[in-house]
Amino acid sequence: MKVKINLDQLIQGVQDVMKAVSSRTTIPILTGIKMSVDSDGMTLTGSDSDISIERLIPVEENETVHIEIDNEGSVVLPARYFSEIVKKLPNDTVEIEIGERFETTLRSGSSEFSLLGLDPEEYPRLPQVEENHVFEMQGDLFKTVIRQTVFAVSTSETRPILTGVNMRLEDGLLTCTATDSHRLAERQIPVETGSEEISFSNVVIPGKSLNELSKIIDDNDENLQIVVTSNQVLFKAKNILFFSRLLDGNYPDTSKLIPSDSKTEIVIKTKDFLQAIDRASLLAREGRNNVVKFATIGNQTVEVSSNSPEIGKVFEHVIAEEMEGEELKISFNAKYMMEALKAMDCAEVKVLFTGAMRPFLLKPMGEQSIKQLILPVRTY
Amino acid sequence: MKVKINLDQLIQGVQDVMKAVSSRTTIPILTGIKMSVDSDGMTLTGSDSDISIERLIPVEENETVHIEIDNEGSVVLPARYFSEIVKKLPNDTVEIEIGERFETTLRSGSSEFSLLGLDPEEYPRLPQVEENHVFEMQGDLFKTVIRQTVFAVSTSETRPILTGVNMRLEDGLLTCTATDSHRLAERQIPVETGSEEISFSNVVIPGKSLNELSKIIDDNDENLQIVVTSNQVLFKAKNILFFSRLLDGNYPDTSKLIPSDSKTEIVIKTKDFLQAIDRASLLAREGRNNVVKFATIGNQTVEVSSNSPEIGKVFEHVIAEEMEGEELKISFNAKYMMEALKAMDCAEVKVLFTGAMRPFLLKPMGEQSIKQLILPVRTY
Repeated sequence: MKVKINLDQLIQGVQDVMKAVSSRTTIPILTGIKMSVDSDGMTLTGSDSDISIERLIPVEENETVHIEIDNEGSVVLPARYFSEIVKKLPNDTVEIEIGERFETTLRSGSSEFSLLGLDPEEYPRLPQVEENHVFEMQGDLFKTVIRQTVFAVSTSETRPILTGVNMRLEDGLLTCTATDSHRLAERQIPVETGSEEISFSNVVIPGKSLNELSKIIDDNDENLQIVVTSNQVLFKAKNILFFSRLLDGNYPDTSKLIPSDSKTEIVIKTKDFLQAIDRASLLAREGRNNVVKFATIGNQTVEVSSNSPEIGKVFEHVIAEEMEGEELKISFNAKYMMEALKAMDCAEVKVLFTGAMRPFLLKPMGEQSIKQLILPVRTY
Repeated sequence: MKVKINLDQLIQGVQDVMKAVSSRTTIPILTGIKMSVDSDGMTLTGSDSDISIERLIPVEENETVHIEIDNEGSVVLPARYFSEIVKKLPNDTVEIEIGERFETTLRSGSSEFSLLGLDPEEYPRLPQVEENHVFEMQGDLFKTVIRQTVFAVSTSETRPILTGVNMRLEDGLLTCTATDSHRLAERQIPVETGSEEISFSNVVIPGKSLNELSKIIDDNDENLQIVVTSNQVLFKAKNILFFSRLLDGNYPDTSKLIPSDSKTEIVIKTKDFLQAIDRASLLAREGRNNVVKFATIGNQTVEVSSNSPEIGKVFEHVIAEEMEGEELKISFNAKYMMEALKAMDCAEVKVLFTGAMRPFLLKPMGEQSIKQLILPVRTY
């Protein structure tokens, strides 16, 4: 292999696949990036066996030539060193040449690196994905769906299935759910499934995979193709393939958790409510598990408070836009509430309570596609 | 005490004095910020007993009123909580009132905090500094002097005196020196000493103090007054007093270390040289203590190289602007060289070698006030 490649393109490509490379892998060759050049261009691959990312740098794009190819070929290069080196090369192009025993030379300006490469035949094959279950949605929209749900996955390995986001597809409607059993986030969104009718219900994608995917997808309205199989999901964006394994096991039926009635309903400005909780939680962090108290006062005011015997106390008052039903005193984890409110993307939020000991529901005002559920904490 | 104060002013003041507050202090009251209000305004004080910072927020400044005073008084508030709270208060002013047993109420908009304060009488007095040895220089210039020397102080407590920067003043010329015994940085600068002739030689300011001071001084040309006593130094800027203890012990005589002759001299573009060393060091970090090799080739070219048997090797070539004297091969720590080059602030640097085993000297081209000395490492 001998090529001359635009450095910015290479840096961007390496940065994308590095998101799948882990320094803690038990498979030595996965500390490397696979680089293959054929007539389409240069394909870079990174993997930690859970996530694999394949990135094509095309020979030419929008009438700009990215790569001049002298010889095709492939090699595996030490990922961390290679990615640091390309970022610091002096010219705007680099010449890459594979020599004997996969020793690879990088020349850029007056700089010359020789890296000891590995045999690409020893690099694991990417999963073979049969494209039976395919649907599409805008990339930036899918990023929003990830942001609105993934924060609620469990970080504990006690129930591994809860460390992922559950995707269900039925009648062209995608439902994404995440819960750590203390709170739950759900987002529904219509998707394009082509002519074929497809449905599935027990697809659980690791939260970590979705976080990495989110960093790679461009913020534009180009379509993302999503291919689901029994143990893998593949996201196809422009020049990128992103594979993730799915979690084994049955995702719990969360539909029964969401209350259908309510005893107290408030509508409140999201930002004011969020900031009041943020301040109240300042005194709740240590020794109190970040739990704040919430109470309705009269028929218009919400009080958020916290009391730390060693530091002091805080009272916050927020005027609600609407308030109906029974008086209420309830306590909850401020972090859960703040994350739920931030995921809402709305000026006003509706909160539906069914008593101090029951989970309560948050919805953006006038919007049914997002639901956030939080379990209270007993303190009153 | 009861006052109403502009929140931005309070946030800035608290942020300044927080630089002296440590969470690891053994004196409980020093986890607090002392707040005193008198007719001048509000004075905030933070201290970790090594560094003490006193910050005045004047009642009025540039025809803007910062504080409305109902009652004077003082209190010590829990620093970490207080600083986090003020940053998040909703209004652009906050009302502060000290109640019984130093319980202090902060009211801003619909937010009300009560913090358990402590008796200000228990807060240690700031050092009494006699103003015998006073000199002045521009604040931004002193920040430059700090930046050009402080990186070279020792981080090891083996010889505590080397963790500080030595200041000597003679004939109106201030000399600042830092060394960790592997490299040395020296900066000279004329200062204003008023009518009186002052001189001192063994003033050693902890590197940590200078780093914190550097964060507080504004980037402008206002004068900084520097008051030196036998065990304290006081920096006086607008509305700020910054006290630091001095290090005990005798600073070594470093003047003999600096070679007066040279066998090889080069002049080289600082940026090109810096970037070549930066790249070469990429392969030198692990297992090789960041040591790179340097060699003159012919009478014009400098080669910087590194070889890591497990990863690969790198050769960098830089054309020197000038090169005189004997051929040279030498090895040195890339980090020391890069830090020295960055401190130079010059387009071209002159490097003076006196052989592969002797310390070598760097100076900005055409400039005598900065000297950087680096000890080589034996590898050739």
